[in-house]
Amino acid sequence: MTQPTFSTALFLPFLHASHTGPQYQRLFRAFQQAILSGKLSPGTRLPATRPLCCALSLSRNTVKTAYEMLHSEGYLETRHGAGTFVSQRLPEASPARSVSGATAGAHITPPRLSKTAQRLLQLNNSNPPATGHLLQPARPCVQSFPWQQWQRHVTAAARQMKHTALINRLGSDELREQIASYLQVVRGVTCSADQVLISAGSQQGMYLALKLLLDEGEPVLIEDPGYQGVDGAITAAGARKVSVPIDDQGFRLQDGLAQAPHARVAMLTPSRNHPMGHTLSLERRLALLSWAQHCGGWLIEDDYDSEFRFDGPPLTSLQGLGGEHCVIYTGTFSRILHPSIRLGYLVLPPSLVEPFHTARRYMDGGLPLLPQMALAGFMASGQFSSHVRRMRKLYQQRRDQLHTQVQQRFGDQLQRVEADGGMHSVYRLPAGYNDCQICDQAQQSDLGIRALSRYYANGTGQQGLVIGFAGYTLAQMQQGLDSLLLIFQGLEAR
Amino acid sequence: MTQPTFSTALFLPFLHASHTGPQYQRLFRAFQQAILSGKLSPGTRLPATRPLCCALSLSRNTVKTAYEMLHSEGYLETRHGAGTFVSQRLPEASPARSVSGATAGAHITPPRLSKTAQRLLQLNNSNPPATGHLLQPARPCVQSFPWQQWQRHVTAAARQMKHTALINRLGSDELREQIASYLQVVRGVTCSADQVLISAGSQQGMYLALKLLLDEGEPVLIEDPGYQGVDGAITAAGARKVSVPIDDQGFRLQDGLAQAPHARVAMLTPSRNHPMGHTLSLERRLALLSWAQHCGGWLIEDDYDSEFRFDGPPLTSLQGLGGEHCVIYTGTFSRILHPSIRLGYLVLPPSLVEPFHTARRYMDGGLPLLPQMALAGFMASGQFSSHVRRMRKLYQQRRDQLHTQVQQRFGDQLQRVEADGGMHSVYRLPAGYNDCQICDQAQQSDLGIRALSRYYANGTGQQGLVIGFAGYTLAQMQQGLDSLLLIFQGLEAR
Repeated sequence: MTQPTFSTALFLPFLHASHTGPQYQRLFRAFQQAILSGKLSPGTRLPATRPLCCALSLSRNTVKTAYEMLHSEGYLETRHGAGTFVSQRLPEASPARSVSGATAGAHITPPRLSKTAQRLLQLNNSNPPATGHLLQPARPCVQSFPWQQWQRHVTAAARQMKHTALINRLGSDELREQIASYLQVVRGVTCSADQVLISAGSQQGMYLALKLLLDEGEPVLIEDPGYQGVDGAITAAGARKVSVPIDDQGFRLQDGLAQAPHARVAMLTPSRNHPMGHTLSLERRLALLSWAQHCGGWLIEDDYDSEFRFDGPPLTSLQGLGGEHCVIYTGTFSRILHPSIRLGYLVLPPSLVEPFHTARRYMDGGLPLLPQMALAGFMASGQFSSHVRRMRKLYQQRRDQLHTQVQQRFGDQLQRVEADGGMHSVYRLPAGYNDCQICDQAQQSDLGIRALSRYYANGTGQQGLVIGFAGYTLAQMQQGLDSLLLIFQGLEAR
Repeated sequence: MTQPTFSTALFLPFLHASHTGPQYQRLFRAFQQAILSGKLSPGTRLPATRPLCCALSLSRNTVKTAYEMLHSEGYLETRHGAGTFVSQRLPEASPARSVSGATAGAHITPPRLSKTAQRLLQLNNSNPPATGHLLQPARPCVQSFPWQQWQRHVTAAARQMKHTALINRLGSDELREQIASYLQVVRGVTCSADQVLISAGSQQGMYLALKLLLDEGEPVLIEDPGYQGVDGAITAAGARKVSVPIDDQGFRLQDGLAQAPHARVAMLTPSRNHPMGHTLSLERRLALLSWAQHCGGWLIEDDYDSEFRFDGPPLTSLQGLGGEHCVIYTGTFSRILHPSIRLGYLVLPPSLVEPFHTARRYMDGGLPLLPQMALAGFMASGQFSSHVRRMRKLYQQRRDQLHTQVQQRFGDQLQRVEADGGMHSVYRLPAGYNDCQICDQAQQSDLGIRALSRYYANGTGQQGLVIGFAGYTLAQMQQGLDSLLLIFQGLEAR
C-alpha cells in the first residue's frame, strides 16, 4: 500500500473562503471537508503542527487547536512514534459525504411526510392564506393599541420574572386569574382560574381540544358556513368534519345528527356565527346542552369576538348556561389587541383539566411566560377593559362608515347581511357575480376581502364579500372600495 | 290553562347573593336562573318595569336593561298590548338546565377522551413529573441570568412591536437570523434563517417533527437510555418507539434496524447522550447519514445542551456533517437561559420548510412575538454568547464541586460516569441498591435527582442516580447530598 500524501494547497481555498468564525474553526472545517470529501483519504499522514503553521501563515496554537478538535471528533488517529494520520476507521469517501451540503446531501430515496402533513398541505393549497392588506376581516385597529401602557406592563413583567421559578404548563397563574374573573363578569362563564389553559391563540386551543377529544376519523359537527381555520384544526387533529347548515336560529343540530348519528363533539360560534353573524337561539342552545349531557359529548364554543357586540352587552356564553361540564370555551387576544400577541385561552370542564395539563407537558411544555405576565398586568390595571370599550365604539363607527361608503359606490348592488357586531360585514352579491373571481382580482390590488362562498362546505354557498372594517380608517376604506369598484366596472364592461 | 304568576320574592336571594358585575347583569342572571330552573315557567307574565324597580329598589334603567337583555337572548316575548311573558318556545325546565352548574350540568353518559389523551394520561401516571427542587438535572443557574440586560432588550422589543404588522408563523425574522448565524459559527450547522422554526421549547419541536413525519403506529428509533420527554412526544404523535441500545460509540443503528427494518426516522442526541454523556462516534454519524439518505429517512438531532461542553469547543452537529437535507436539528433556550423563556427552535431541511409552515398555520398559528424579539436583541448584542461562556465555566466548577462533595460523603460507593460536559452527572450505584426506591425517598426530602434506570426502556437498565449541578450553589449541593446520605444510611441500617 502506498501511503497517501498531504498537500497544503488543499487548504488554502477553504481558509480564504467566506467561512465565518475563528481561524482554528475554519482550519478545522477545511480539514473536515477535505477528509469527508475524500481529498484526504484514510491513512494519510498529516504534517506536524510546526511546519503546517509556517506553510499556512497561522499561529501554532490555531493549528494545535484544530488538530485537537479533529482528534476529538474522530477524524485523526495518532500512531505512537509515527505521527498523526487520517483515521483508518473512516469509510471511503462517497458523494453523499460532503459538508458543503446542497445537492451532495440530498436524499437518494425521496423522503415521505406523514398523512397529516400531506393533508394539511393539500388544504393549504386549496385555501392559500390571503395576502392583500386592505379590508381584511379579523384585523383589529393596531394604531389604537395603547402601546405606552402596554410597554409599562411588559417592563414590569420582565422584572417580575426574576422571582418566578416554577412554571405552570397551563399558563401564568396571574393571567389565568385575570381571564377567569373577566369571563365571569363579561361573558357569564362559570369557572375558576384552575380551569383556564393559556394557548397560542384560539387555533392552538381548537387543535388541542380536537386532538384530545376525537380519534382519527371521528366526526365533529361544525357550522356551514363557518370559520375556515376550523377546517385546518380538524385536519391536523385527524378528525372528520360534518358540516351542519345554519339558519337564522343558528346551528341545526338535528341535521348534523342525521349525517353522523354517533357524533360526540360539536364546534361552533354561538354568540355570532362566523362570518354571517347569526346568534344561536336560546332553544337551540338548550337543545345542544341537553344533547351533550345525554351522549357524553363535548361542545367547543368559539367566542372569537363577542366583545364587539354593538347592540347591547355581550350575550351569555353557552358555557355559562349550565354547560360548565360539557363546554370547552375558547377565546383569543390576538383579535382583540394585536396580531403579535398570539395568546388565547381555553376554559376547560373540571374533568378535562388533568388530561389537558398532561398533553401540554408532552406536546409543547407550555408557552413563554413573559407576554402572559405582561397581559395579566394589563388586565389587572383595567386598561384591557377600557381598550375593549373604546374599540367597541370605534368599530361600530367604522362599520357604519364602511356601509355608507359601500352604498355610495355600489348602491343596491351589494346587500349587507345584518349582524349585531363584529369586525367585518358580509355583503351579498347580485346574481351572475362570482365572489371567488372578484376576490382573486382584489388580491392583486392588495385587498384582503374574502369570498363568502369559501366559508361554505364544498363552495356550494351564497355569493358575497366578507369585508373587514375594524382595522381601517375612512381613507383606507375609500381607497379599498375604489379598487373594488374598478374591478366591478371591469366585470360589467365585459 | 291557568296563567303562572310572578313573585318578586324569587329574585331577592339572587340579587343579594355574591354575584359580581353591575346590577342590571345581576338582575338579568337572576331572571335567567329562575327561568332555566323552572321557577318561572314558560308563559309567565312579567311585571312592568316600573313596579318591579320599586319592589326591588333598583333604578328603572337597571330593570329596563335587564329586560332588554332577556329579550335579546330569547327568554322573553312581548305580546302586543298584553305585556311581556316568559317565552313559550322554551322547553320545560329539566334538572340539567341550571345555570348554577356544578352537579346539575354534569354528563349523564360519561364523556370519553381520544386514544391519544388516554395514552398520555397513562404515560403521565407511570412517570409523574418530579416535584423535588434540589439537584434537578436540566435546571440552569437562574441566579446568574443577566436580568438587567434582559430587561433592556424586553423593553426595546415592546417598543419595536409597534412597527411589526405582519407575523411570520415560523417565528420572528430577527430571531431566526440570530439563531442561524449562531448555529453556523458555534455548531457548524449549515442553514439559512429561512430554515429556522421557533418552537415553545424543544418538546414542541419534537412533537411537531414526529407528527409531520410519521403516521400512526410507524416506528421511530430512539436511544436507550434516552431523554424521557421523547416518550411523551412520540406518544402524543401516535408513533411507535423502538428503543435502540447505545454503547460507548453511541447509537447502534443496526440493532434498531433489526427490530424495525422499515424504520425511516431516528431521534437522537449525537453530541451528548442524555443522560449518559456518550458522544456518537464519527463512523456511526456517517453511517446514520448514509442510511437516512438511502432510505429517504429523517434524523432528528436533539442538541439540548451541547453549549456546555467543558473539554473543548462544541462538536460539529450531525446536521453540519452533510445532513442538511435529512437532519432536523433541535435546540432550546429554556435550558440555557431560564425555564420561563420557553423558546426553542428547529432547523429544517429546505424541503420541510413549507410543510412545517403550513402545519404551524393550522396547529398553533405561531407563538407570541414579544419574547422572540427580546431574545433576538439579546443575541445580537453578544450578551447571549457571553452568558453561555460564563455558564460553561460556572457549570464546570459546579460539576467538580459536586464530585468532591459526593466523594466526601459516599467515597467509592457512587461511581461517576465520565462525560465531557452537561448540566448533570450520572453516578452508578453499587449492587443491591434500587435507584427508584432511593429517588422516591429523595423526593420527600425535596430532592429532584432522578433514577438512572427510568431512562431505560422497560426499566431494564443500570442502577444509578442522575444528579443536576448546574442550578445549585455549593451550599445547596451540601444540603442535598446530606439528605441523600441520610437515605443511604437508612437503607443500610435495615
